[in-house]
Amino acid sequence: MTSPSTKPMRQQAEEYISKLQEDIVTALEKLDPNAPPFKRDSWLRPQGGRGLSAVFAVPHSSTSQAAAAMQNTVLEKAGVNISIVHGVLPPAAVKQMRADHGSMQNIEGSLPFFAAGISLVIHPRNPHAPTVHANYRYFETTEPIAEGQGAESAQGKVLAWWFGGGADLTPAYLYEEDAAHFHRTLKEAADPHGAAVYPTFKKWCDEYFFIKHRGEARGIGGMFFDDVCDEPHKRFPGEADAQRPRTQEAIFAMIRALGDAFVPSYIPILERRMRTLTNEHEKRWQQLRRGRYVEFNLVYDRGTLFGMLTPGARIESVLISMPETARWEYMSDLGGDGENSEEGKIVQVLRTPKEWV
Amino acid sequence: MTSPSTKPMRQQAEEYISKLQEDIVTALEKLDPNAPPFKRDSWLRPQGGRGLSAVFAVPHSSTSQAAAAMQNTVLEKAGVNISIVHGVLPPAAVKQMRADHGSMQNIEGSLPFFAAGISLVIHPRNPHAPTVHANYRYFETTEPIAEGQGAESAQGKVLAWWFGGGADLTPAYLYEEDAAHFHRTLKEAADPHGAAVYPTFKKWCDEYFFIKHRGEARGIGGMFFDDVCDEPHKRFPGEADAQRPRTQEAIFAMIRALGDAFVPSYIPILERRMRTLTNEHEKRWQQLRRGRYVEFNLVYDRGTLFGMLTPGARIESVLISMPETARWEYMSDLGGDGENSEEGKIVQVLRTPKEWV
Repeated sequence: MTSPSTKPMRQQAEEYISKLQEDIVTALEKLDPNAPPFKRDSWLRPQGGRGLSAVFAVPHSSTSQAAAAMQNTVLEKAGVNISIVHGVLPPAAVKQMRADHGSMQNIEGSLPFFAAGISLVIHPRNPHAPTVHANYRYFETTEPIAEGQGAESAQGKVLAWWFGGGADLTPAYLYEEDAAHFHRTLKEAADPHGAAVYPTFKKWCDEYFFIKHRGEARGIGGMFFDDVCDEPHKRFPGEADAQRPRTQEAIFAMIRALGDAFVPSYIPILERRMRTLTNEHEKRWQQLRRGRYVEFNLVYDRGTLFGMLTPGARIESVLISMPETARWEYMSDLGGDGENSEEGKIVQVLRTPKEWV
Repeated sequence: MTSPSTKPMRQQAEEYISKLQEDIVTALEKLDPNAPPFKRDSWLRPQGGRGLSAVFAVPHSSTSQAAAAMQNTVLEKAGVNISIVHGVLPPAAVKQMRADHGSMQNIEGSLPFFAAGISLVIHPRNPHAPTVHANYRYFETTEPIAEGQGAESAQGKVLAWWFGGGADLTPAYLYEEDAAHFHRTLKEAADPHGAAVYPTFKKWCDEYFFIKHRGEARGIGGMFFDDVCDEPHKRFPGEADAQRPRTQEAIFAMIRALGDAFVPSYIPILERRMRTLTNEHEKRWQQLRRGRYVEFNLVYDRGTLFGMLTPGARIESVLISMPETARWEYMSDLGGDGENSEEGKIVQVLRTPKEWV
């Protein structure tokens, strides 16, 4: 056992997501040594903070021969980004947050905030290899600093803090063993932190990543959570509250366990499927599913919408989650025939989310 | 001069949009006689009403040779739809409409409505041929019919009615003469109906079809309007009110003039550009612009969002506006270099909408 860190959580969170980003990018690069490396792109936010984008995309070649050679990469497009930002939340945002945080009940007006998070989306090229998304973040609001005290390093008392995040898998073709492996790995990481954690966040994930206008889930789920702190949480009512981490240190330990589980939850699946023999038909279905991914992200995803509608947001980072290409067909003949095709099989699972573990 | 029709406006509107749909589809089919015809798909709305979709899409072939032959069509994907529906507006929708219609001031609760509209999106295959969108609709709310009087044909007194619509052009490459032709044709159709019509609706169009998170217009504009009736309209303040049609008959005459202008405003442009020699680079830019089209439609377009979020809506008709394929690149090298490339030139115009006539 090591003794609890005495560093402020801001710093611990920043250090953890930086290391996790590097681990994930390294694992992906190792899997495909002949592909171009991820492009690291560090940026500063004029209003405060910084970020580091690590992006995979295949450069465009002027000759079709060179272009074809590039099409052999395992990944089609991927972004593994971290951002560590601070600034001032407008009154409307503060008001919205009061609902979930008792410690903010008497706060009016705007408030300083700090946020550190990692966010990733990986779209592999092979239609048998699933798209994956994960995101872990720490958020803090603090008391305003009086005018004159405002040194860059000055920081008011923490008023509220919370963690959010999750990971979810979006296959175009269903491999039950992949879905089970992904969920099992997350569950095994979560279980030591409380028996209610996995079932609660699994259910929340199925609810969140749902494309209402299609009546389908985006993928086969995983975990999703938000506003987890030492105050009571509406998703852990009654006795469930004792079956989840309740201190900042315990919650951060769970976050690290889930973050560390990303590589073992996903890389073995990618490795298994990335060289599967495929054809035009399967690629067309993958493109149609990418269209659904775009629909979810632009219509429902809170993070994407928040990013797009925030003045001064870095739009290229916000929309890194988009697939390289997507497709829409009117009344497509694919996917509507239930058990009679591989396309129909996954649609059935998306319409009725399953327990995988 | 013919004498004014004595038919109810519902019926006149339905007849007009049906004929306009047929005229537009015929013009498009004539342009490309070897392509498969539009697929006519009529549907009934269980809650009341009907529609007729006319959709162009290239069927999928099992051999890549047959598929390649199909790739020679002028159009890539197109939908020209009409719908004539009636039902009951929920109280929230009624409340929202009261703001624009004095005749609804004292109305509370839900109300019967009738809507007849034509809506079209045409995505040609050649990157030099622009995408076009147009939409014309008539809307009516009526007094509720008392229980017992409720024969299918029974209809209460009209409480409020209005027209809305417009047309706009979205090129991937800028041809100033095309933009000027499109705007000039619309302006010439609008001018006999009042000098304020074109300038007012042109400006409204530039404001409406704006992708805020990109700081770019969707295309080079056209006309856009809503809530036009015999009551005062906030877009025609003061003296402008005398320079626009103000009776139901006069407004419907303007709608017909604009609807009839669709074919001459667009088909000559399509004819000019549809066989332009092109290459992979231009197709890639077209795909990136299609991505922007998707972003606008899913994030900002009221009609699309209303359709997607309405329970029981026909989602395939709502999302017919999607291009067949679209593309997203992180920090694309295309379009950011101003006057130095054809891609940069159109981005400049999208950032600063121009007067074309």
